[in-house]
Amino acid sequence: MKYSNVFPKTKKTAPTGAESVNHQLLVRAGFVDQLMAGSWTLLPLGFRVVTKINEIIREEMNAIGGQEMLMPLLHPKEIWNETGRWDKAAEILYKLKDSREHEYALSFTHEEIVMDLLRKHIQSYQDLPVAVYHFSTKFRNEPRARSGILRGREFMMKDLYSAHVSEEDLMEYYEKVKEAYKKIFKRLGFEIRVTEASGGVFTDKHTHEFQVLSDGGEDTIFYCGTCDWGVNKELMDEKIDTCPLCGKKDIRTGKSIEVGNIFPLGKWYAEKMKVSFTDETGQKKPVWFGSYGIGPTRVMGTAVEVSHDDRGIVWFPQIAPFAVHLVSLPGGEEKAHVLYETLQKNHVEVLWDDRKVSAGVKFGDADLIGIPLRLVVSAKTGDQIELKKRSEKEAKLIPLQAVMSTLTGT
Amino acid sequence: MKYSNVFPKTKKTAPTGAESVNHQLLVRAGFVDQLMAGSWTLLPLGFRVVTKINEIIREEMNAIGGQEMLMPLLHPKEIWNETGRWDKAAEILYKLKDSREHEYALSFTHEEIVMDLLRKHIQSYQDLPVAVYHFSTKFRNEPRARSGILRGREFMMKDLYSAHVSEEDLMEYYEKVKEAYKKIFKRLGFEIRVTEASGGVFTDKHTHEFQVLSDGGEDTIFYCGTCDWGVNKELMDEKIDTCPLCGKKDIRTGKSIEVGNIFPLGKWYAEKMKVSFTDETGQKKPVWFGSYGIGPTRVMGTAVEVSHDDRGIVWFPQIAPFAVHLVSLPGGEEKAHVLYETLQKNHVEVLWDDRKVSAGVKFGDADLIGIPLRLVVSAKTGDQIELKKRSEKEAKLIPLQAVMSTLTGT
Repeated sequence: MKYSNVFPKTKKTAPTGAESVNHQLLVRAGFVDQLMAGSWTLLPLGFRVVTKINEIIREEMNAIGGQEMLMPLLHPKEIWNETGRWDKAAEILYKLKDSREHEYALSFTHEEIVMDLLRKHIQSYQDLPVAVYHFSTKFRNEPRARSGILRGREFMMKDLYSAHVSEEDLMEYYEKVKEAYKKIFKRLGFEIRVTEASGGVFTDKHTHEFQVLSDGGEDTIFYCGTCDWGVNKELMDEKIDTCPLCGKKDIRTGKSIEVGNIFPLGKWYAEKMKVSFTDETGQKKPVWFGSYGIGPTRVMGTAVEVSHDDRGIVWFPQIAPFAVHLVSLPGGEEKAHVLYETLQKNHVEVLWDDRKVSAGVKFGDADLIGIPLRLVVSAKTGDQIELKKRSEKEAKLIPLQAVMSTLTGT
Repeated sequence: MKYSNVFPKTKKTAPTGAESVNHQLLVRAGFVDQLMAGSWTLLPLGFRVVTKINEIIREEMNAIGGQEMLMPLLHPKEIWNETGRWDKAAEILYKLKDSREHEYALSFTHEEIVMDLLRKHIQSYQDLPVAVYHFSTKFRNEPRARSGILRGREFMMKDLYSAHVSEEDLMEYYEKVKEAYKKIFKRLGFEIRVTEASGGVFTDKHTHEFQVLSDGGEDTIFYCGTCDWGVNKELMDEKIDTCPLCGKKDIRTGKSIEVGNIFPLGKWYAEKMKVSFTDETGQKKPVWFGSYGIGPTRVMGTAVEVSHDDRGIVWFPQIAPFAVHLVSLPGGEEKAHVLYETLQKNHVEVLWDDRKVSAGVKFGDADLIGIPLRLVVSAKTGDQIELKKRSEKEAKLIPLQAVMSTLTGT
C-alpha cells in the first residue's frame, strides 16, 4: 500500500491526557482513534494488526476443535435473569429498554447466551462435547476507562465456550485450552506467566490468567523466578517467601497485563439454566461448562507496551501491519516503484512511503509506525538498498538482488 | 470437517411460525439460530457462508481503494444530535443511558461517527479522497422483525464511506462503487436489478438499490424487461407503460429483496457537522460524502430464497459452506477416510458425514444442507464413486481417480 493513500497520517503529538504508552503511540502512529472514553475505532493500520492477531488465535482454536460462529450482542433480560447475573453484574452491564418495554443487556460476556443455545440443540451425551467460539464485541460499563486500549468500555474479545458430559472431560479440555493459549501467546511474541486468579462475577472457583509482565499493567502478580508458578496478588494478602511448587526462595513481584483468562465453570450455569443431556443409562444430567477469553485489541495494546522505544512502536514481525516499510528519496522513485511491484507480486506486504516530504519526516514516521524492516532507495544508494531493522540501530547497504531473494524467498 | 463434530445437527421440522423459506431452511439445516425476534446466531455452518460472502465483498472494496477498519457500536448522543438524527431516526434507534447519565445510541448506521472521525483527521484537499469501510453490527428497532434473517433488529452490515473535495469527484466514485457492487452481486451468484429509490432517513436525494427478484421479497419494483431501467414502487404512484430509458413497452412488476443500497449524500452531513477541508486557494469547504451498504447476512438469506427446492438449500458454489459433501455408507468407510484426507491435503473443503446412521438420513441431510457436490462411497461403489450435483437429479458412477483429479486440479 502507498502511504500517501493511508487514512489517517501520523500525528506529531499525543492527545492531551494520554498517559499510557499504547495510547500515545497507537494514536500518534494512526492505528486507533478514540470516539469517547473507553471506545476506539480500529483505523486501517490497527485493523491490519488485529486481523493478524485474530488469525493466530483462530488457527489455534480450530486446532483444538473449536468451531467459529457469531452471536448477538443485544441480550434479553429474561435469559440473564436465569443465573441472577442481571443483578449480580449490574454495575458493569449496560441495560436498555425498547419501545415495546422489553429489557436488554449489551453483551458483557456470553455464558448465558451460549447456554441458551446449547439447551435448544443438545439432547444426549452423543451431542457432547461442543466447543464454539466467536470474535465479537463486549461492552463493560467500567467506572474508569483507562490505560489506552487496555481497558475499554467497548472492545473486541475472542471467547470460546465448551460443554462436556463430565468434570473429567471438562478439565481435560481446560488443560488443552491452557496449552493452546500458551502457544498463541508465544506465537504472538509474548513471554507469558500463567497465574491463579479469582473468578469475579463468573465463578466462585479459581481461574487461570495469562499475564504479560509490563510496567504499563494494572495487575500485580507474584511469580517464581525459577519455575512456572504464579498467582494474582488479589488472591494473596502477603507475598510468600518460598515457591509452593518448586520450593526455591525466588518469589518476585511484577506489574502485569492480563491478556487471557480461562474459567472452569463447572455445573453452576447448567443447573441454574436447566441445560442437561441424557447419559448412556438414560439419566438426565447437567452439562459441564467452561469459558475462555482473549482480548485481541488488548493484545495489540500490550504488544506496544512491551515493545517500543522513544521513537515509536517496534512491532513483533508476526503481527506487524506490513513486513516492509519502503522509503523512496529523491532519485530513488523509479527503483522504489519496481521494488514495490515485485514485493507485492511475491506477496510480501509492503508499505511504500511515496510522499513528497523530507527524508527526516519519512524516517520519523517509519520509526513511529514500527514496521520491522525499513528499506531506503535514493540517488545515493545506487545499485544497493539501505536496509535497517526497526529493532536495530545500524543501517546496512545491501545489493538489491540479495534483499529481493531474502524477502521473496527466491 | 466431520459431520459428527458439527454443532448443531439438522432438525426434522421448521420452528413454529417460520413463514419464510430462508427461516425454515437455514434453521432446519443448522446455519442459524434465533435468540429472539430479529436476532440470530450465525452457527458454524452459517458463519462459513457469511465468511465467504464477506471475502468476496472485501476483495472488491479493496479493489476500489477501500480501507478496512472497525468502528464502535455505542455512539454518544451528542454526535447524533449534530445532524438531528437522534430525533429524526428515533423510531428505529435503540437508546440507552449509563450510570453516569450519559446517553447513547446503538449503531443504526455510522455516517455521523465516520464524519466525526474525518473532521479529526482531515485538514486539506491533500488528505482527500478517503474511502473506509467495515463489517460490523447494526441495530434497528424494527416494528416487526420478519422474513427470517432478511429483516433483523441486529444484523451484520458492510458499510463503506467516502469523502471527496467536490461533487464531481464524489459522483465519479459513486459510479465506481455501483460497478463494484454489480460485480460483487454477480460473483455472489445473483441476477441484480439496480433501481432508483428514496433516501429514507439518510438523504433527501434519490439513491440506488440493488434488488434481487424473489417471491420472498418485501419490496416491489418496476423494471424494464428489455434494458437495465428499474425503480422502487415507493417512488411511483402507478406503473408506467413505456420505459423512460429505452422506450420499449416492456415494464414489469416484481417482488424483490434489497441486498445493497448506495447513497450520494452530498454536503449535508459536512455542513451539519462542520467537516471541512482547505482547498488549493486556502478556502474552507465542506466535504462531499457518500455511503454504501451491503448486508452479508441478508445476502445469505436471499441466496436461500432464490436457490432451493423442496428438499433443501441449493448453495451457489462460491458461497457454499463446503465444496464437497462426502457420504460414507457401510463398506465405504476406509475409502472415505483416504478420500477425506486427500481432499483436505489439496485444500478442497469437504464435509464428511461419518455418522453411523442410515443412508436415507445421510442423503436427506445432504439435500437439506445443500453443498454443491455429493460423493458417496460404499461397498457397492467398488473402485468408483457415486457423484451427484445438488442442482441435478441424476447420480453418476465415476472412477475414483477421475473425481480426484477434477477436484484437486492435478
